[in-house]
Amino acid sequence: MSSYVITGASRGIGLELTKQLLELPVTQVAKVFALTRSRPSNSLNQLIADNSDRLFSVIASVDNATDLKRAAADVKARLGEHGGLDVLVNNAGITAFSPGGTRNLTAEQLTQVLNTNVTGVHLVTMAFLPLLEAGKGKKVISMSSTLGAISWAQKFKLSPTPAYKISKAALNMLNTQYALDYADAGFTFLLVSPGWLTTDLGGEGADFPVDVGVQDVIRIILDSTPAQNGKFLNIHVPGQEDAWGSYDGKEISW
Amino acid sequence: MSSYVITGASRGIGLELTKQLLELPVTQVAKVFALTRSRPSNSLNQLIADNSDRLFSVIASVDNATDLKRAAADVKARLGEHGGLDVLVNNAGITAFSPGGTRNLTAEQLTQVLNTNVTGVHLVTMAFLPLLEAGKGKKVISMSSTLGAISWAQKFKLSPTPAYKISKAALNMLNTQYALDYADAGFTFLLVSPGWLTTDLGGEGADFPVDVGVQDVIRIILDSTPAQNGKFLNIHVPGQEDAWGSYDGKEISW
Repeated sequence: MSSYVITGASRGIGLELTKQLLELPVTQVAKVFALTRSRPSNSLNQLIADNSDRLFSVIASVDNATDLKRAAADVKARLGEHGGLDVLVNNAGITAFSPGGTRNLTAEQLTQVLNTNVTGVHLVTMAFLPLLEAGKGKKVISMSSTLGAISWAQKFKLSPTPAYKISKAALNMLNTQYALDYADAGFTFLLVSPGWLTTDLGGEGADFPVDVGVQDVIRIILDSTPAQNGKFLNIHVPGQEDAWGSYDGKEISW
Repeated sequence: MSSYVITGASRGIGLELTKQLLELPVTQVAKVFALTRSRPSNSLNQLIADNSDRLFSVIASVDNATDLKRAAADVKARLGEHGGLDVLVNNAGITAFSPGGTRNLTAEQLTQVLNTNVTGVHLVTMAFLPLLEAGKGKKVISMSSTLGAISWAQKFKLSPTPAYKISKAALNMLNTQYALDYADAGFTFLLVSPGWLTTDLGGEGADFPVDVGVQDVIRIILDSTPAQNGKFLNIHVPGQEDAWGSYDGKEISW
């Protein structure tokens, strides 16, 4: 009987996560709060219509502390008095393309990507921490990327996304700090690289359809325990362990 | 006969770097451009007065692209027609203290630290790249920190500086991207951890006086070649290899 907040739930990985979580029995997934920046997408609205007993829309921008405070109060009210949030999935993220190299990345792009992918995750985490402390799961899962692993940078040299890479490296350190702060409180702050998936962000040339990657992200979320606190895990796609993204389900080196 | 631009030259490591570089013969250090956000400090002004033939003040904020464009034009004019810049030292940086943990770090603090320590380094680098391309040294040295190494995070858990740590992890990825982009052009993009030094930023309880750390930073700058491109080096302080900061002069793992 777990409750989830998922950010960036209108599209891509966030929408698919929401969909697949709702395919699990209500004894496992009791309530899902789909957080979106603006009105839910048509796909998310359809999902809400089909699951109105346990899927709820919450509108808040991840870079707006006031929005998020209101969102957390809203979630708290809907969880009820015995509530408490079990799992927060920091999924919302953006990218920026800088063809021709890092020198073509504008300061505005870099600032915007850092705002959403780093400061946004920090703000969302701060907003929901009191509810997570009251919950049993105490899991904070943040969508990172092997593109944010400095030790993998040579391999991903040709991906023209320096702002995204920089933001995910920063996110990895943010998560590490939270993991250290909350280890004694029984939390699991876990970074997951969901793989290169066909979403608006990932594009058409990605390695897998979104459902393939998300299926393993859900396995990682469900299987995670405080023993994974602070770790950075790759998805496992059988037969794809030696692919470009080394989808072996193992820890990713920083 | 090398020329240097040093950011954050009014105080701390930047001031000491400027001072020690000027102790080298003019055949080795021809011109130093001390870049400061506002009017040079009294200490820097005194140094300029004593070295007016080869130390020049340039005022620009590292987060202001217009300032930096003007600064680069100013440096170009003073380098003369055969000029070109040899070494850029991205030293300017700020920190923020968050006693009581990461949840007490405000979004404003995090944004400000990322602006200066990451986007600022990017803007400065973009502004001076054309001059560096025209120079012989082709070195861009960025002051990072072992605090920005995720693999060292457990060790530095008690330092209440999450924003600084996050920003330096991000800077490490920024430098990595530039290093990959400019490897073929003969550049050396090098990250240096100058050690925990007694400066306004480092505080009184630091491991070494600023001159001790800076002395080895200068050795690293002078010794560096394109073989160090993309690396992250610790200072070497003989006898302090086993100290808290492992001052062994070796590569730092991410």
